[in-house]
Amino acid sequence: MAKEPRPVEELSIWEDARAMIRKARKEGIETVHERLDQQTPHCKFCELGTTCRNCTMGPCRISAKAPRGVCGADADVVVARNFGRFVTGGAAGHSDHGRDLIEVLEAIVEGETKDYRITDEPKLRAIAAEIGVATEGRTVMEVARDVMDAFYADFGSRRKSISFLCRVPEKRKAIWAKLGMTPRGVDREIAEMMHRTHMGCDNDAPNTMIHAARTALADGWGGSMIGTELSDVIFGTPTPKMSTANLAVIKKDQVNILVHGHNPVVSEMILAAAREPELIEQAKKLGATGINVAGLCCTGNELLMRQGIPMAGNHLMTELAIITGAVEAVVVDYQCIMPSLVQISGCYHTKFIDTAAKARFTGAIHFDIHPHNAMEQARKIVGLAVQGFVERDPGRVDIPGEPVDIMTGFSNEAVIKALGGSLDPLIQAIASGDIRGAVGIVGCNNPKFKQDSMNVGLAKELIKKDILVLVTGCVTTAAGKAGLLLPSAIDQAGPGLRKICGSLGIPPVLHYGSCVDNARILQLCAALANGLGVDISDLPVGASSPEWYSEKAAAIGLYAVASGIYTHLGHPPNILGSETVTNLAVSGLEDLVGACFVIEPDPVKAAELFDIRIRAKRKGLGLSE
Amino acid sequence: MAKEPRPVEELSIWEDARAMIRKARKEGIETVHERLDQQTPHCKFCELGTTCRNCTMGPCRISAKAPRGVCGADADVVVARNFGRFVTGGAAGHSDHGRDLIEVLEAIVEGETKDYRITDEPKLRAIAAEIGVATEGRTVMEVARDVMDAFYADFGSRRKSISFLCRVPEKRKAIWAKLGMTPRGVDREIAEMMHRTHMGCDNDAPNTMIHAARTALADGWGGSMIGTELSDVIFGTPTPKMSTANLAVIKKDQVNILVHGHNPVVSEMILAAAREPELIEQAKKLGATGINVAGLCCTGNELLMRQGIPMAGNHLMTELAIITGAVEAVVVDYQCIMPSLVQISGCYHTKFIDTAAKARFTGAIHFDIHPHNAMEQARKIVGLAVQGFVERDPGRVDIPGEPVDIMTGFSNEAVIKALGGSLDPLIQAIASGDIRGAVGIVGCNNPKFKQDSMNVGLAKELIKKDILVLVTGCVTTAAGKAGLLLPSAIDQAGPGLRKICGSLGIPPVLHYGSCVDNARILQLCAALANGLGVDISDLPVGASSPEWYSEKAAAIGLYAVASGIYTHLGHPPNILGSETVTNLAVSGLEDLVGACFVIEPDPVKAAELFDIRIRAKRKGLGLSE
Repeated sequence: MAKEPRPVEELSIWEDARAMIRKARKEGIETVHERLDQQTPHCKFCELGTTCRNCTMGPCRISAKAPRGVCGADADVVVARNFGRFVTGGAAGHSDHGRDLIEVLEAIVEGETKDYRITDEPKLRAIAAEIGVATEGRTVMEVARDVMDAFYADFGSRRKSISFLCRVPEKRKAIWAKLGMTPRGVDREIAEMMHRTHMGCDNDAPNTMIHAARTALADGWGGSMIGTELSDVIFGTPTPKMSTANLAVIKKDQVNILVHGHNPVVSEMILAAAREPELIEQAKKLGATGINVAGLCCTGNELLMRQGIPMAGNHLMTELAIITGAVEAVVVDYQCIMPSLVQISGCYHTKFIDTAAKARFTGAIHFDIHPHNAMEQARKIVGLAVQGFVERDPGRVDIPGEPVDIMTGFSNEAVIKALGGSLDPLIQAIASGDIRGAVGIVGCNNPKFKQDSMNVGLAKELIKKDILVLVTGCVTTAAGKAGLLLPSAIDQAGPGLRKICGSLGIPPVLHYGSCVDNARILQLCAALANGLGVDISDLPVGASSPEWYSEKAAAIGLYAVASGIYTHLGHPPNILGSETVTNLAVSGLEDLVGACFVIEPDPVKAAELFDIRIRAKRKGLGLSE
Repeated sequence: MAKEPRPVEELSIWEDARAMIRKARKEGIETVHERLDQQTPHCKFCELGTTCRNCTMGPCRISAKAPRGVCGADADVVVARNFGRFVTGGAAGHSDHGRDLIEVLEAIVEGETKDYRITDEPKLRAIAAEIGVATEGRTVMEVARDVMDAFYADFGSRRKSISFLCRVPEKRKAIWAKLGMTPRGVDREIAEMMHRTHMGCDNDAPNTMIHAARTALADGWGGSMIGTELSDVIFGTPTPKMSTANLAVIKKDQVNILVHGHNPVVSEMILAAAREPELIEQAKKLGATGINVAGLCCTGNELLMRQGIPMAGNHLMTELAIITGAVEAVVVDYQCIMPSLVQISGCYHTKFIDTAAKARFTGAIHFDIHPHNAMEQARKIVGLAVQGFVERDPGRVDIPGEPVDIMTGFSNEAVIKALGGSLDPLIQAIASGDIRGAVGIVGCNNPKFKQDSMNVGLAKELIKKDILVLVTGCVTTAAGKAGLLLPSAIDQAGPGLRKICGSLGIPPVLHYGSCVDNARILQLCAALANGLGVDISDLPVGASSPEWYSEKAAAIGLYAVASGIYTHLGHPPNILGSETVTNLAVSGLEDLVGACFVIEPDPVKAAELFDIRIRAKRKGLGLSE
């Protein structure tokens, strides 16, 4: 590391993070921040999106000197192809996650598992009714089988549209149909995007971008929505509850297991095993006071929403959590798991355990987990963590700060219940202007931003303006650590939001779940639009991913825009090398789908932009601005 | 173009190509060769495969100075991820092509088209019987519907394995099952690969490579095989016939329409329309003597195999064909269509017409073609081409040379028929050593190689050694122009091959079809292995893609290796930045699947390597070497 390390104050707004980065530096452990320094400056061609590696006539770099690749593709085509594949990586991640939930439902229906069951039968029946599966007089398993069949079909090639198109407002569906943007099948759109971006296929950037949107919609209204809904059916629909967040949820006197990744299928079992008296007894015999399962990233969000487990941190905290020296095991499923965690675990007594055949980590301990053996394997994993407690070096343990209280569990069902059974009070509050609008802040951390400065900054600015904020993914822990996920945060909100949230006893920033749970926000927007008889693009709503880094965030952003939601990003995807693609993203899509992207790195300015947008949309609906 | 243009003699072995490159230079038209010069030297990181753009914490470049990306991924992980996606682009291309054929079959079964029909009912029934669809006493449409259902299911998520696994030798299936390499569903493997290669998923290079192989197998034994088989069912199974090849098949006195891309669905209609008396009459009225439909690349191969149309050229001839100045229309479907063809068409009177919603070209004339309107649209396209004849500038027309005769149409069915009804005579010829072995030479051109020097060079060396050569894709025209696709080419073969091919009246180099038709070669290998009671990896066979450039070629290479076929490439894919991945490709896979890749740019040395391999395999089977 030739460069001078950056001061920790520049890297994160959090004291717990800063303390652990200092500890890492002292102990000679490399983190994401040092690696970013090593990788900076980045390749300008790759940043602009003008590098093409899709065949071996190249690789090519499009520039003024060489305006076309060997095949003849120009910057527009190359950038569109790259962005199309980028979005597809994200859509595939979410959707393959959704498929895994269908497979668990199949195991339940086929009687192949004792470890999973249908927990929320009313939700299953409600979904069935929505998608046209008969429920009257049928057993739960009969209904479940047909729902499973419908969702499997959503991943196939034979449908003209996916099941949850039933939730989409008519005007929106008409726009998609006209543009050729209606998602037919989840995997089909993914495969077709890979086909289109092969050399010599789709060589018209706007056409490629339309299909990128279609693929993203197949994620949002398909794979992700199936993932969310079936997770609720199997593990229970979230209800409001209290929990805690930040690194101090890691307990000095307990066996600490961190669950990390995105899917609750494995981690729910880990949690269940950690609550079994035998294993707790074992832990106590080894000198611990108990077993503590804490969450990282979206696996954390899934278990936080439903089971109220504490949240150790978001993306940029994952390395730092291990550096506390008090983590016996990190148990991962898939997505956003920095491979560096294996090396950092190796610097301590921490066992790094992977559980998915499709997400193996060189150097990890692997447990193959399937519906038929999940609890059995989970017990072994927890047992391994418990044994690890004695290997912990107390001299290297440093858990900074104190946990912060948070409120979680805001599913749409929970919100409707809190509102007295329908969305009408919310619609009235929007109509009256007490709630001027709503913005979902979602996504990631990215070491290119001071950690959570934008995530928290934007949320604070928005609630001041009486704009309700919904958070998911990594923004959850950010908002939580900032105290925004507590009813008391209404003190920081504008008068209208203070009134409404105060009367309901809820925070002005609502935790809406994991990244796949952005489907909950889509569903809410659609319900509001349907309630008002308008399109989603007519609503005073927006979306933001201020500190995004992942392909999934790009897919989320694109399905939000294609659904009619104005979407802010803190930095652009790698598309600036094409004027056509960039213009389409930041303005042209407005004409096509009634929404577009806006790029703004300053949270105060971004909040202003949302304010202007919401003002215009309120005016369009004939409401006070 | 700052660089001195390379002498045309270095660019191609063909006089027709050289003449047209000279003409292009004279007329100031840029071709692939100039663009390659502009793009050389390539980015070393991209060439090594060590650039990662899969998230916006980067882009990253892995080097000794920065051995890990921002996430912590090392060169092994980055290279494996990139290669995984590269192969997936190819698998998706072939397979989405296969899906299009299922959709045509569906249109036939549902009575939604008058333009397509089931031409080879016995083949349909044979396939049905193979994959377990009842045929006895059922109508052709009943059988077709069930076959369609089975093939659609092969693209879905519910199967444990694809239909044509029934063709795979038992020993091979056991290897795949053990390695987790059995393809379950075509789209599923594609989507899962995109998921695995998202940041924080699969971070173990060998595990990623195994799934790359699985995805490739889903192509070879799934998407491609379905594409080939249904094309035969719908358009007829190829039988041996004579045709011609090279640029001189373009006729000075006729309306010339070039069909280009990969799928016969559109081009079969173009050919049918071009044979209609009304359109020929129109052409004659405008001073032409007729309408000439000639082929480029694999669309050309499809129509050559079944309808015997002349072949204007392979990949590096596509631009040059237009430069003759005598082409009224280039009608494309998808894949390997250089976007530069639009610009080059614009330099002449040539109409560039695209026909697929998923492969639009900026600046092209678009015709939307579906099973229900295909002939109607095809007539309009041919009409447009006919009208274009009067726009031709005779002063710019230059059609070099004379056409070369070729023999084509060697489907497995045709070969078996020629052998008297079974493969036994072929097995006997192999056993006796008259035919020492067989090598499929497949794939592309790449301007990094002197055009067709390797394709032709290798074929000539192999037949000398009594090794039967099967060619597909762009190697077809290469072999054809070299005179190797004629029975008289036995003069250039070794004594054994001369004897056998001479007695059958067939060439020592057999044209086996388009790139998806490499599935025919897989099927032949499987049938030989099953006939001998051995695995495919025990056979004295090999595969080569000497001048490959495309992601599809990488998929083909990988499914060949994973099927047990030793595979030669003229240059490596972009994997050399990882020792782990490279070693796996060129030796490690031998232990896993009984075959590996070999990289060798010299055709004589490559032929020597095949000779050694075939010698060893023959010995293994107890045969004379």
